[in-house]
Amino acid sequence: MTDPLRIGIAGLGTVGVGVVKIVRQKANLLATRSGRPIEIAAVSARNRDKNRGVSIDGYGWEDDPVKLATREDVDVFVELMGGADGPARAATEAALRAGKDVVTANKAMLAIHGQELAELAESRGHVIRFEAAVAGGIPVVKALTEGLAGNQVTRVMGVMNGTCNYILTRMEESGLPYQTVFDEADKLGYLEADPNLDVGGIDAGHKLALLASIAYGTQVDFGAIELEGIQKISIDDIRTARNMGFRIKLLGVAQMTGRGLEQRMSPCLVPADSPLGQLQGGTNMVVLEGDSVGQIVLRGAGAGEGPTASAVLSDIIEIARGTRLTTFGQPAAGLSRARPARTTTPAPYYLRMKLVDKPGAMAKIATVLGDAGISIDRMRQTQHESGAAPVLIVTHRTDRGSLDIALENFAATGVVQGEPVAIRIEDV
Amino acid sequence: MTDPLRIGIAGLGTVGVGVVKIVRQKANLLATRSGRPIEIAAVSARNRDKNRGVSIDGYGWEDDPVKLATREDVDVFVELMGGADGPARAATEAALRAGKDVVTANKAMLAIHGQELAELAESRGHVIRFEAAVAGGIPVVKALTEGLAGNQVTRVMGVMNGTCNYILTRMEESGLPYQTVFDEADKLGYLEADPNLDVGGIDAGHKLALLASIAYGTQVDFGAIELEGIQKISIDDIRTARNMGFRIKLLGVAQMTGRGLEQRMSPCLVPADSPLGQLQGGTNMVVLEGDSVGQIVLRGAGAGEGPTASAVLSDIIEIARGTRLTTFGQPAAGLSRARPARTTTPAPYYLRMKLVDKPGAMAKIATVLGDAGISIDRMRQTQHESGAAPVLIVTHRTDRGSLDIALENFAATGVVQGEPVAIRIEDV
Repeated sequence: MTDPLRIGIAGLGTVGVGVVKIVRQKANLLATRSGRPIEIAAVSARNRDKNRGVSIDGYGWEDDPVKLATREDVDVFVELMGGADGPARAATEAALRAGKDVVTANKAMLAIHGQELAELAESRGHVIRFEAAVAGGIPVVKALTEGLAGNQVTRVMGVMNGTCNYILTRMEESGLPYQTVFDEADKLGYLEADPNLDVGGIDAGHKLALLASIAYGTQVDFGAIELEGIQKISIDDIRTARNMGFRIKLLGVAQMTGRGLEQRMSPCLVPADSPLGQLQGGTNMVVLEGDSVGQIVLRGAGAGEGPTASAVLSDIIEIARGTRLTTFGQPAAGLSRARPARTTTPAPYYLRMKLVDKPGAMAKIATVLGDAGISIDRMRQTQHESGAAPVLIVTHRTDRGSLDIALENFAATGVVQGEPVAIRIEDV
Repeated sequence: MTDPLRIGIAGLGTVGVGVVKIVRQKANLLATRSGRPIEIAAVSARNRDKNRGVSIDGYGWEDDPVKLATREDVDVFVELMGGADGPARAATEAALRAGKDVVTANKAMLAIHGQELAELAESRGHVIRFEAAVAGGIPVVKALTEGLAGNQVTRVMGVMNGTCNYILTRMEESGLPYQTVFDEADKLGYLEADPNLDVGGIDAGHKLALLASIAYGTQVDFGAIELEGIQKISIDDIRTARNMGFRIKLLGVAQMTGRGLEQRMSPCLVPADSPLGQLQGGTNMVVLEGDSVGQIVLRGAGAGEGPTASAVLSDIIEIARGTRLTTFGQPAAGLSRARPARTTTPAPYYLRMKLVDKPGAMAKIATVLGDAGISIDRMRQTQHESGAAPVLIVTHRTDRGSLDIALENFAATGVVQGEPVAIRIEDV
C-alpha cells in the first residue's frame, strides 16, 4: 500500500453525501481495489451544521470552496456543487492551478467551459474526470473514451434526462396532459430549480455535448446543439405514436456527416420495441455506435445518490490507481473545432395538424409535400372536432430542409389551423 | 508523441485479422487517442501464405508463437490463438517472463489458469488485459473493473453465448425442435469445433468465472460453476414458457451469499418483457448489480471480427496510454479463494412432467411438493397424449435443495413418466 489518496469534497448535497458514505462505509474495499486508501481530507458546503445523516466531524472544513480546492492536504478536488460558473468554476480552476486533479459531476460547467478547463489541466499534467456528469451511474464516459477507443464513432444517442422520460412515460400510462404530469413531477421533487434545464432539454444537451466531444475528437460545443424540449408534446401525439408502434423520447443524437457535426436534443419517435422505445420511467440509456463494434447499448440509473456517487467513486479510484487520461480522450490542445451542421441526415417525420373542413384541403397539403420532394408513407384523418379535421402524416425519409420548406408553405395554403407538429422518427 | 507501442499478434483467425485491419486502417485515430503510434512488429499463425484479405508482408513473421512472444521488438503480446493450454498458454507465459504485457481474447485460458498467470504478470510488473474474452465488443470487463469499482457487487448476470441465444430464439420463432435448429446453426458455421463449448454452456461459463473473480475479489474458479447446457430444452418448454410470459435463456448468474459464492450457467426462465427476455438472436447482454449503482445493463455484439477486434484494441490503447491495471481489479496475490456454494438462493421453479393417467396421480405430485415445503403458484394439465398427461407447475420461491428432494421423490410415486424438467425462474 502506498500513501492514501486525499480528496476534498465541495458540495454536500445528495451526491456529495453519497460519496462521503461510500468512502466511510467501504474503506477496505476501496483501498483493496485502488491499491491505496482513499481518505476525505476536508469538505466544503453552504451550511456546516446541517444534518446530513452522515458525520463530517472528522474532516477539515472550508466555507470557501476555492480554499478547499487549494488545501495542501488535498490531492483530488471533488466538485459536486454544480452550476456552469460561479464557485464551481472558480474552485475547479484554482484546484488545477494548485496542482490538483479534479473529479466533477458538473455537466453544465464542462459543456460550456470544458475546452478551456481541459487545456488548463493538461498543460499542467493534471486530469479532469467526469463520469458522473453523464447518465449518472452508467459508465458511459469510460465506455466511449476507452472501450470504444479503437472505433470511428458513427453515432451517439441517448435518453439522458430521467425527469423528461418519467414525464413522457407517465403521460402515456395515465393519459394525462403534459401540464398535469409536469406539476406532479414538480411536487415529487423531480425537477431542477429551473425546470427548463430538464424539460427544455438543456441538461440532457450538456451531456450530449460532452459525449460528442469524446466521440469525434472535437471541442465541446453546447451552443451548436439543436435544442428542443418536451413542452409541446401533447397527449394526442403520444397516443397516436403508440398506435403506430412508436414511443416519444427526448433523444440526443450526435453524428459526424460530410457537412459537419450534427448535434440535436429533441423529442423523437422511436420504435416501441427497440431498446430506447422500451425505456420507461426515470432510467437512462445511451447507445454508442462504432464502425468496428456495431451498436452498444448501456442502461441504468441516470440520477440519485447511489448511482451518481458510484460514478464519482469510479473516477476517484481511477486516479488512485494511477491512471492518467486526457479529459476528452485525446489531448485537448489537439481537439478540432467541429463545423456545426444543421440536421440534414434524412429521416421519416411524423406530422400532425388540423385542417379546416372544406373540400380540397387534404389535396393542398399533399401538394405542398410533393412540391417539397417529400413523399407520404402513411396518412390518416381522424374524426372531426368542431370544424377542424385532425390529420396525421408519416413521411418517407426526407431531409430537414425540405421539411422546413413544407412546414412554411402549409401556412400559405390557408387550410391548416394552428401550428403543425413535426417530430423526427429516429432510426435506432 | 512518444515511441510507438509495438505489438506482436499470435493467431490470425477472424479476430486477429480484424485487429490487423484496424491498426492499418485507423493508424492516425489510434495514435491520436493513444498519445503514441501503435505498430504491428510481427505476427504468427499456422499458415503464413493463407489469403486473409489483408497483407501481412510488412511485419516480422514467426512460425512459433513463443518466439513471437519473446521478440525484442514486441512490447505487447496479443494472444488470439485460443485454447486453455498448448501454444496459447506457453506463449503467454513466455511473454510475461520476457517482460511483455499481454492482451488476450482467451476466456478458456484465463478461466482455468487466470490466477497463476495474473500472479506471474503482477510479480513482474506486467499487465494482462482481456476485454475481448468476455461478451465480445461490450466493454464489460472495463465497466466492472473500473466503472463499478466503488460498489459492493451484489449480482452479475449474463447471456454471453450468442450461439445458444440464437438457437433458443430460432426455436421460438420457427417452432422447430432443438436438434433441427442445432443442425441449422452448425451449417451456418455458428458452432465451435466442439459444439459442447457452446451448447453445453462451457464457453459462457468461462466468461462468467472471469466476471465473478472481478466482482467478488476471488480467485477465478471455473470448476465451481454449476453448469447446464441447453441441449435438453424442448420446444414444448419454450412454448409453455412463452405462454406464461417468459423466455428461456442460457443465463449465467454469480452472486456472493452467506454460504459462499454461487456461480451457475444454466437455462433459466426470465420475464419476456425484461431486458434479458427481450434479447433475441446472437446479441449478448450483461447485467451488473451493485449496492450503490443499482442495475446496469450492457448490450452488444458478443462475437464477430469487428466487435471482438474493437475490444482487443481497447486493451492495446489502454496500455499505450500508460494505464496499468491489475488483471482482476485488485492484486492477484490478495484474491481470496471463494467458498463455492451450491445454489441456495431461493427462486420460483418451472416444472414440467408427464403423469400416468390414473386417479390420484396429481394428488401424489402435490403431496411430494408439499412434503418438501414447496408451495404451488400455478399448475396446469394440458390435453392427454396416449395415456400420459403433461403437467406444468410453477412453484413459489423455493431453494434448490428442497426442489431436489421433490424431484427425487417424484420417482417413488410411480405416477411420473420419464424425467421431470425443472428450470429456475430467475428474478431479473
